[in-house]
Amino acid sequence: MNINVPRGTEDLLPEATKKWQVIEDKLNHLAQVYNYKEIRTPIFERTELFQRSVGDTTDIVQKEMYTFEDRGGRSLTLRPEGTASVARAYVQHKMHGSPAQPAKLYYIGPMFRYERPQQGRTRQFTQFGIEAIGSASPAIDAEVMAFAMDCYQELGLKSLKLVINSLGDQESREAHRNALIEHFKPVKEDLCSDCQNRLERNPLRLLDCKVDRDHEAMQTAPSILNYLNEESSQYFEGVKKHLDAMGISYVVDDTLVRGLDYYTHTAFEIMSEAEGFGAITTLSGGGRYSGLIDELGGPDISGIGFALSIERLIMALDAEGVNLDKDESVDCFVIAIGDEAKYTSSNVVNQLRKSGVKADQDYLDKKVKGQFKSADRVGATYAVIIGEEELANGVANVKNLKTGDQKTVETDQIAKEIKSGF
Amino acid sequence: MNINVPRGTEDLLPEATKKWQVIEDKLNHLAQVYNYKEIRTPIFERTELFQRSVGDTTDIVQKEMYTFEDRGGRSLTLRPEGTASVARAYVQHKMHGSPAQPAKLYYIGPMFRYERPQQGRTRQFTQFGIEAIGSASPAIDAEVMAFAMDCYQELGLKSLKLVINSLGDQESREAHRNALIEHFKPVKEDLCSDCQNRLERNPLRLLDCKVDRDHEAMQTAPSILNYLNEESSQYFEGVKKHLDAMGISYVVDDTLVRGLDYYTHTAFEIMSEAEGFGAITTLSGGGRYSGLIDELGGPDISGIGFALSIERLIMALDAEGVNLDKDESVDCFVIAIGDEAKYTSSNVVNQLRKSGVKADQDYLDKKVKGQFKSADRVGATYAVIIGEEELANGVANVKNLKTGDQKTVETDQIAKEIKSGF
Repeated sequence: MNINVPRGTEDLLPEATKKWQVIEDKLNHLAQVYNYKEIRTPIFERTELFQRSVGDTTDIVQKEMYTFEDRGGRSLTLRPEGTASVARAYVQHKMHGSPAQPAKLYYIGPMFRYERPQQGRTRQFTQFGIEAIGSASPAIDAEVMAFAMDCYQELGLKSLKLVINSLGDQESREAHRNALIEHFKPVKEDLCSDCQNRLERNPLRLLDCKVDRDHEAMQTAPSILNYLNEESSQYFEGVKKHLDAMGISYVVDDTLVRGLDYYTHTAFEIMSEAEGFGAITTLSGGGRYSGLIDELGGPDISGIGFALSIERLIMALDAEGVNLDKDESVDCFVIAIGDEAKYTSSNVVNQLRKSGVKADQDYLDKKVKGQFKSADRVGATYAVIIGEEELANGVANVKNLKTGDQKTVETDQIAKEIKSGF
Repeated sequence: MNINVPRGTEDLLPEATKKWQVIEDKLNHLAQVYNYKEIRTPIFERTELFQRSVGDTTDIVQKEMYTFEDRGGRSLTLRPEGTASVARAYVQHKMHGSPAQPAKLYYIGPMFRYERPQQGRTRQFTQFGIEAIGSASPAIDAEVMAFAMDCYQELGLKSLKLVINSLGDQESREAHRNALIEHFKPVKEDLCSDCQNRLERNPLRLLDCKVDRDHEAMQTAPSILNYLNEESSQYFEGVKKHLDAMGISYVVDDTLVRGLDYYTHTAFEIMSEAEGFGAITTLSGGGRYSGLIDELGGPDISGIGFALSIERLIMALDAEGVNLDKDESVDCFVIAIGDEAKYTSSNVVNQLRKSGVKADQDYLDKKVKGQFKSADRVGATYAVIIGEEELANGVANVKNLKTGDQKTVETDQIAKEIKSGF
């Protein structure tokens, strides 16, 4: 029986990887322009990290993690997201002591969640994410959102919407939380069992519930924006003022919430408004957190981050019909006639490559006609033909396949000739 | 208690990742020049894949794999190497049916082996590898070796040695195997218990034994090169002739063996001869295999591959003192004086970035002097200064920090001015 790729994962074949390369080059370039530096953390972490950071009660930790013991009996988990690992590394390497503040970091790599596979959701997926840790200035919240939008815009996407909200600081959240409990208590019996359970523990998550979202009480639920204290309100105004100054459009949506305790102040999502994108319209999201670095043993400072799924980004590119083609043509294909010419062909191909010319030759003992076909198939601009006569004279026939022009060139001058172009 | 990175793994912080980026860019570029296309396979595979391809009796499968059950009860394993996954994908996606033959593929990514961590050996490590599947021409063996050498040479390494051998085809291997058994039988009792066990099963692996390597019988063991049949001998001669034609130096070492049954004909290693590299001198290796694609359900064709560890490549760069510095300076740092100027600063930074200029600003409410220090620390070529007066007039003071030249520029012309350079 053949062995296939594990359920919920997929291979990226060359037709796909060339698109990924274009996307990753662009994201890496944007990171340079925004002055974020790359960090790479291991594929797995100690399980405790995610229990403590993502949170024991979340779906991710309870149902979706790939957790296993290594041969030394340690519980390890394939990382389900990137922020926890970056925060762990920040604390472990005492980055708060570095002169570069805030720490502006980015990562790109595979993440793992055991979920029901469906379109746009695989068990291994790839996140590009950024974290700015150590500044509590509204300006950096705006920067992170500008960067997030640029990830899509620079790749040519147009139908985008930036949705923002503020969750306020701890005091504001507490006031809102109490208001939510008061609001939902009278209708508790109408709600789904999950919501009934969450009501006292984490009432914010009720606003996220897919079962109860049409319940009348949802429409009239108290808005966090009415419970922001002075400081939180000012912070949110500052963020909006920076976005305005930068000419970045946004809409405020006070139902945009995030369940984890760590989230404070700014929360945002980027949505696609492209037709044909289907039910999934949220492309990515991010927000400010405080208490996380602290929880992991670092100083009491806050950060703001953002992460996008490259798989979902590609769905959006497809939905908007954006084509990211990359020219993978070979510059020169060398054609050998006769057995002895093959060694010279290897030599010429090697010389061309050493000069940076993309070159190839036949490895299937094809006849001359077949070799010309191969040259055509790989999109070669030039063919170098080495026949018996050329071989005897230490030369080759170099032909521009686009114009039909040809020249006889000494074997060791071919690279030079092709690089000069004719 | 703080949570650290799992034992045997490490974080790559920005100082390291910039070096990795240079290396990966170079390897990706070389792949283009050699006309190899990228393939990405999942981080984990069904465990059976490695049992069937790497082999049930190997140390890797028996002792070193990270194997676990997913929540659906499937046995999965973090990939310990790349060839098995590429061969699996080749078969699953029926690549032998593609017009591009041989399939020339490359991969780059993390691999996992539960080994005792030591210098240059981590439990998560990164391999760059290539596979050329579907050609049995000596020319492609030479190509793979040329590519392998170039991976090091193009990064500036000089003290390199290419060591090659032939393991012959099945018939030759069988003849050599019998000769080895005959040779070692009389001294069996002198050998270590591992070797005694391996003698009948896989006598080739005796030649690899670290315990018995000084035993007299090792020095006089029959050489595979004396047991190559006509076809195998011709194949090996062809490989050497191609290498000669390409001007690639090599040494033949008939003790270079590989234990797996799949390996046939060409085997090679690249060694570092750099002083101070320590005990590890083998940088990487590769070779031809047949039967693997077949075993996984594909056609009966052979391939040749090569893989290098980037961690070990970096050790070699360090040993030879090769510096891969990458300029990560910011082009322009924007300095805001007073609270209102901050919004304009965000706007200017955003405009600069949108024009592709690497720009940054202060996010810690620093005084002017501190902001100038930051500009200096990030290596900015230009500073844009926005004070009260500039703000009132919609201009900024743009200063070339290298020459001291300065200009007053309208806010929306700054990007243009900086890109033109002054």
